[in-house]
Amino acid sequence: MAQPTGDIGLIGLAVMGQNLILNMNDKGFTVVAYNRTTSKVDYFLENEAKGEQARRLYSVCRPTYPRPQQVRKSRARTPLTSSSAKLKRPRKIILLVKAGVAVDAFIEQLAPKLEQGDIIIDGGNSHYPDSIRRTKELEAKGLLFVGCGVSGGEDGARYGPSLMPGGSPAAWPHIKEIFQKTAAQVQSEPCCDWVGENGAGHYVKMVHNGIEYGDMQLIAEAYDVLKRGLGLSEDEIADIFTKWNKGVLDSFLIEITSNILKFKDEDGEPMVTKILDQAGQKGTGKWTAVAALDAGMPVTLIGEAVFARCLSALKAERMRASKVIAGPQKEPFKGDKQQFIDDLEQALYASKIISYTQGFMLMRQTAKEMGWNLNYAGIARMWRGGCIIKSVFLGDITKAYEKDINIESLLFDDFFNKAVHKAQPGWRRIVAQGVIWGIPLPAFSTALAFFDGYRSEIVPANILQAQRDYFGAHTFRVLPGKENAKLKAGEDIHINWTGHGGNVSASTYSA
Amino acid sequence: MAQPTGDIGLIGLAVMGQNLILNMNDKGFTVVAYNRTTSKVDYFLENEAKGEQARRLYSVCRPTYPRPQQVRKSRARTPLTSSSAKLKRPRKIILLVKAGVAVDAFIEQLAPKLEQGDIIIDGGNSHYPDSIRRTKELEAKGLLFVGCGVSGGEDGARYGPSLMPGGSPAAWPHIKEIFQKTAAQVQSEPCCDWVGENGAGHYVKMVHNGIEYGDMQLIAEAYDVLKRGLGLSEDEIADIFTKWNKGVLDSFLIEITSNILKFKDEDGEPMVTKILDQAGQKGTGKWTAVAALDAGMPVTLIGEAVFARCLSALKAERMRASKVIAGPQKEPFKGDKQQFIDDLEQALYASKIISYTQGFMLMRQTAKEMGWNLNYAGIARMWRGGCIIKSVFLGDITKAYEKDINIESLLFDDFFNKAVHKAQPGWRRIVAQGVIWGIPLPAFSTALAFFDGYRSEIVPANILQAQRDYFGAHTFRVLPGKENAKLKAGEDIHINWTGHGGNVSASTYSA
Repeated sequence: MAQPTGDIGLIGLAVMGQNLILNMNDKGFTVVAYNRTTSKVDYFLENEAKGEQARRLYSVCRPTYPRPQQVRKSRARTPLTSSSAKLKRPRKIILLVKAGVAVDAFIEQLAPKLEQGDIIIDGGNSHYPDSIRRTKELEAKGLLFVGCGVSGGEDGARYGPSLMPGGSPAAWPHIKEIFQKTAAQVQSEPCCDWVGENGAGHYVKMVHNGIEYGDMQLIAEAYDVLKRGLGLSEDEIADIFTKWNKGVLDSFLIEITSNILKFKDEDGEPMVTKILDQAGQKGTGKWTAVAALDAGMPVTLIGEAVFARCLSALKAERMRASKVIAGPQKEPFKGDKQQFIDDLEQALYASKIISYTQGFMLMRQTAKEMGWNLNYAGIARMWRGGCIIKSVFLGDITKAYEKDINIESLLFDDFFNKAVHKAQPGWRRIVAQGVIWGIPLPAFSTALAFFDGYRSEIVPANILQAQRDYFGAHTFRVLPGKENAKLKAGEDIHINWTGHGGNVSASTYSA
Repeated sequence: MAQPTGDIGLIGLAVMGQNLILNMNDKGFTVVAYNRTTSKVDYFLENEAKGEQARRLYSVCRPTYPRPQQVRKSRARTPLTSSSAKLKRPRKIILLVKAGVAVDAFIEQLAPKLEQGDIIIDGGNSHYPDSIRRTKELEAKGLLFVGCGVSGGEDGARYGPSLMPGGSPAAWPHIKEIFQKTAAQVQSEPCCDWVGENGAGHYVKMVHNGIEYGDMQLIAEAYDVLKRGLGLSEDEIADIFTKWNKGVLDSFLIEITSNILKFKDEDGEPMVTKILDQAGQKGTGKWTAVAALDAGMPVTLIGEAVFARCLSALKAERMRASKVIAGPQKEPFKGDKQQFIDDLEQALYASKIISYTQGFMLMRQTAKEMGWNLNYAGIARMWRGGCIIKSVFLGDITKAYEKDINIESLLFDDFFNKAVHKAQPGWRRIVAQGVIWGIPLPAFSTALAFFDGYRSEIVPANILQAQRDYFGAHTFRVLPGKENAKLKAGEDIHINWTGHGGNVSASTYSA
């Protein structure tokens, strides 16, 4: 039997898997590829992987990949057994299959054929509780598990993604070289580092995706206000994004938006004006919002971004509503257009700062609950390149956390603190103008509301607490500095507001 | 053995349970009460339930209520056996214990002692998936289950709550009289009707609580803008609420807020200014937000209300942030104060319309998914009285759904459509003013952003779809009216935006 030459096995030849193979191949690694549908492997070898560039792919096998029920019937004859023999030990097999049951099905097939210390890597968009469970299950069998966030879409996978691996720490030394070489490089640093135990990699990827939802929504709102508010054309808006891409907003998403806006259909009309305004969700953006609610952290911008997609999905209902609900009288913009555009840049920038502030607050809280030691500078560094949210901005976040890993939030960092102060006047003008025009800016406005709440020593939650105590005996605490004989610090206080309620506080029933 | 005289058994003597007993007793029903801690029963009989008013409570037993582990050890000797014999058949036993494991523990103890057709009612704030499960489990044993939302806090329970029962439909005829007589009455109609199968009662209660979060947050924001913006005193604000309580905002929460604002501590200072501005959450408000995300419905106002509580909870962090982040220069209000207050009334009213619109959209969507036939007019009717959100407003919602049960949303109803149109100018002025002042109005602004999105035939989600297709080959659809040979209606379209990506669309990997 020949000496094994495969550096890593890869299962799942959809676009991400194919491009990751080509990428790893470029970096000098031999990939052994599997796919359930064998014709997909053949086609891939004849097309995308054809020619000199793909010479190391000759080792790709063409398994007659059986369906799970067949595997169970005749385990000995499954080609995986012979194919996995082609991998160097400890074997590393990365799954790029649909998150959910497919991952478990493949793990179930693979595990019995692997040996102590072999590594199964899940590179899909798995939900982090699944990765926590899988780490535990595979470690119990003597195997190692890595749940790895992979971001960057087609192009990232092909030319260098952002990789966020977490799981069994013992796996890291064995995959470090492949992963760090395959990942994007920014200023000769790889956009890949070890994230943390069990579900930490997929958790951080989830927050990344939530932030991506937020970034995209902010860009969409900026487009909307330029188009419907200022009445600019797609070409004019593209030029604005091109200009922004040279400043503080320099990022992949701003860059591609500019390209998108310039892209014309055959008749010369901007392609974007022909695209149905109905966005999908239910993915990791939603998970981030739910995780935020569970952690009790006000990640409002991602929440609004997810809900904005939900609202976009109600296209038919919106169309009917647009016929029966009138907005304000459209008044032409009388101010300085360039000033407005500069204000908008600042509004977008400040809102983005808030979104990342919220995202990092969420990670900090969850790390505390989970006992993860997250390296926030490392996370920002991983996101600087390769992924959808890559930006100059993330370099600044990296610096902020390198300076002080313990800052409570980005708004306490000098750089970002100055940036929001500078952005504030323009940001307020934009949000107010959107309100007057009747152009919905849910992400811009929630960011501003969060900012104003966050910097408020006193928020009106005293009213909520009084109400809750009034109608449900839920008790409240005294505001520091206002203590007296009846209002004692640290005590749960109930007042008989009406004079006729009971004296029992609501220990077992909470609204 | 004496003839059973108990109409209903009640387990759990915290404030809700005690008051519900006194209430049912007033309506002529004999309640048999249990509590794990027997001293609580004794105390209750000697105090709250003492005297003529409680004469029917003589039948209250004083069980030496065993802890679950003891029950399992010596089932035959548990006092529940003898006590349940005091109940008329089919036996009806209502649990008012802490939602979660306690409910299951009590059900586990009760079930073996009951007979075919006996009814266990869970009156706690249980999560609806638990009620779905419990209905199934108990029906499999020949018993009936009712998951009943109970709202109204202490006072509601004592003088007439809003009751939202769902579960085994066969139970309804047996509990209808007790429940409808115990519930609040509005214009001689009970605030209680059958909601629907399995978890429907607790689902509707959950949405009710979410809406309650929203209503409370809106009031808190109105208070904040009057106090920090206009600089009014608590007494002045109380008078405004008193006046509002005579108009379209006439409701329990507005009324109690007025009372709260007038309530003075012994030194004459308004009590509310001594209450810590840190609100609890993680309850049913959060569940509603998560349910909205799961159902893909943009219930943004409740989402923001929950997040506002989360932000309030970060008191220490906010205090430190307030030292290093400055808001806008405070400019004294130069406009017409009364106009501003009237605008605020309209802003609160319009935001409330949006919140209920969103809540009913969520229920409609979930009913579709669950196969529940929800009676929306009935739900609004149940909420009109007895509960925390009781209001004149809910009478108008009742009318809207009585006129047309199939309206897509409240904004399509003539009454509410006119109301939002009328409110719109003032609503926009308030939100814009909050933005300029730097007073956070997250619920007011998200309501307005939703309104402007909902009435937009085109939202900028075309940008999101283009981006998703650009970086992840996620495909898009063509906007109706823009079809051509390459952009076909009903097809998932992928464009090779960059000229160098693959041609494979992302079937297995979605961001």
